[in-house]
Amino acid sequence: MEALRAACLTLPGVSPQAQHAIAEREATLTKPAGSLGQLEELTAWLGGWQQRATPQLEHVQVLVFAGNHGVVAQGVSPWPQDVTAQMVGNFRHGGAAVNQLARVAEATLSVIPVADLRPTADFTTAPAMTVPEFLAAARTGYDAVPQHCDLLCVGEMGIGNTTAAAALAATLFHGDSLLWAGRGTGLDEDGVRHKARVIDTARALHAHSLTNPLEAARHVGGYELAALLGAVLAARHAHIPVLLDGYVCTAAVAPLGCLNQQGLAHTWLAHCSAETGHAKLAAALGLSPLLALGLRLGEASGAALAIPLVRAALAYHTGMATFAQAAVSERI
Amino acid sequence: MEALRAACLTLPGVSPQAQHAIAEREATLTKPAGSLGQLEELTAWLGGWQQRATPQLEHVQVLVFAGNHGVVAQGVSPWPQDVTAQMVGNFRHGGAAVNQLARVAEATLSVIPVADLRPTADFTTAPAMTVPEFLAAARTGYDAVPQHCDLLCVGEMGIGNTTAAAALAATLFHGDSLLWAGRGTGLDEDGVRHKARVIDTARALHAHSLTNPLEAARHVGGYELAALLGAVLAARHAHIPVLLDGYVCTAAVAPLGCLNQQGLAHTWLAHCSAETGHAKLAAALGLSPLLALGLRLGEASGAALAIPLVRAALAYHTGMATFAQAAVSERI
Repeated sequence: MEALRAACLTLPGVSPQAQHAIAEREATLTKPAGSLGQLEELTAWLGGWQQRATPQLEHVQVLVFAGNHGVVAQGVSPWPQDVTAQMVGNFRHGGAAVNQLARVAEATLSVIPVADLRPTADFTTAPAMTVPEFLAAARTGYDAVPQHCDLLCVGEMGIGNTTAAAALAATLFHGDSLLWAGRGTGLDEDGVRHKARVIDTARALHAHSLTNPLEAARHVGGYELAALLGAVLAARHAHIPVLLDGYVCTAAVAPLGCLNQQGLAHTWLAHCSAETGHAKLAAALGLSPLLALGLRLGEASGAALAIPLVRAALAYHTGMATFAQAAVSERI
Repeated sequence: MEALRAACLTLPGVSPQAQHAIAEREATLTKPAGSLGQLEELTAWLGGWQQRATPQLEHVQVLVFAGNHGVVAQGVSPWPQDVTAQMVGNFRHGGAAVNQLARVAEATLSVIPVADLRPTADFTTAPAMTVPEFLAAARTGYDAVPQHCDLLCVGEMGIGNTTAAAALAATLFHGDSLLWAGRGTGLDEDGVRHKARVIDTARALHAHSLTNPLEAARHVGGYELAALLGAVLAARHAHIPVLLDGYVCTAAVAPLGCLNQQGLAHTWLAHCSAETGHAKLAAALGLSPLLALGLRLGEASGAALAIPLVRAALAYHTGMATFAQAAVSERI
């Protein structure tokens, strides 16, 4: 765990040279200063983390990590665990939502089953993963990130994983489990209350073992969450900006934000989901979502939906005329 | 004015048959019901107004109407009036933001100078337009909508037009002019207070002439605003769904929403802009924005940015596998 922790603590920063060059060009473009709002921030973010004065988006990669969860034995999902493997098949055959969303965003999609889809231990009775299991899952994510990549989108699939996400968020940021537990793929109110009690049980069991955020991720997280953490860490070390998907994804990378205040600076939260706890978790991590469309699907669907916004930011910044080129008068 | 008023009052509705067919397919797709949030509503909206059980997006048109405003004589903009014509040139040469945003969204862009860019009368001293001028501008917009169009995006350009928009919104929905007057292309706080006083003057002058929403648009609106109203009305009669851009655009079509409670049902507000009054105006008209990115550029930039969301909605709905096709188990 010490090597992983060290990799989280020593991280490359943004390029001030690239951001300066981008700001200089931005000021010459035929529009009032600041009038493209967050789109202007996206351009600076993209180029700053790519270390390029002219950012590019040739290779956009969507990674979906899939995993299974022992805690489904506690009845926290209305869907059978087999659906995780069935959906991996569906991703591979092009039938899931994210296949279509990635296609129209001109991104490459890869699906990575973590730990061969064997479930974690039920974290109401034991740590979800052993140390070697946790590290192997994080390594799977780390190694899944292509070196030639201009923008990485990450997401997940795993029956039961909103329970793991809520348990991890509650462990890292405290507060009533009901504030972190949502309807997931379709629980009713009784189901959500039961889910919160399951999380309470896990928090009580592991309270004395949670010496740091990575231990929290090992005790109450999951394989695909550990892989997401590894992937986002790898992206940082490779200077690749990242679009984060929904609640599970945000919870998965929260340990990096907790360990290092700048740990998530290369990420942008693609959307605020409808899942209870996501807005609160995003705020705790200082993340501002690009979209808020009431999504609650996961599988990187929200991250893929945000790709066109980044493409648009790049397009206006690189393609617009300057005041001088267009012979447009500047303000009086 | 009576023919225009009649065209606003008698409008075709959405197709319940198309929406029913879309809802039936939606329920079979491999995702939890409702998990794509507003994207699912977009699909139903698109197909319902297109009257197609399988919506399509072959022809997406962006229309930008440009106009000039006599009220700039009152010092309501820090930019010279010549910029309107210069920006029309910039649109035609491909140098403006919306050129790039439309290009990456695979939409066709047309720019229409209204009334040959001659300014309206200064509405602090006279009605902005005579009846024939107002009707001709609305006709320009009406006739600009192509018949073969699957989605229309509308926007505007015109130095001084946020003053006209604020005056029109204040006239239709009442309240302190300061609640409707924003920074436009870059006023400071003193400038905004001056703008609100200019609007107060216009409201006082025309108070007794404003017998209906179309008269309000004629007295304190502008040529490009009248054209926007005409275009959105034409789209409705031609069964074309519409993405509305920012504050000026929303104010321009507000008379249609005021005259007919269902008048804007075929439109979707693409974004909530940073301009003061836009959120309040959207709420008054019952419009929910898709995006909120702090934009304040106009020129259909926000509408163009939202096109990929509609494309994504169409893509998942038509391209995803059903539970049966993918052999994915349904919920227990």
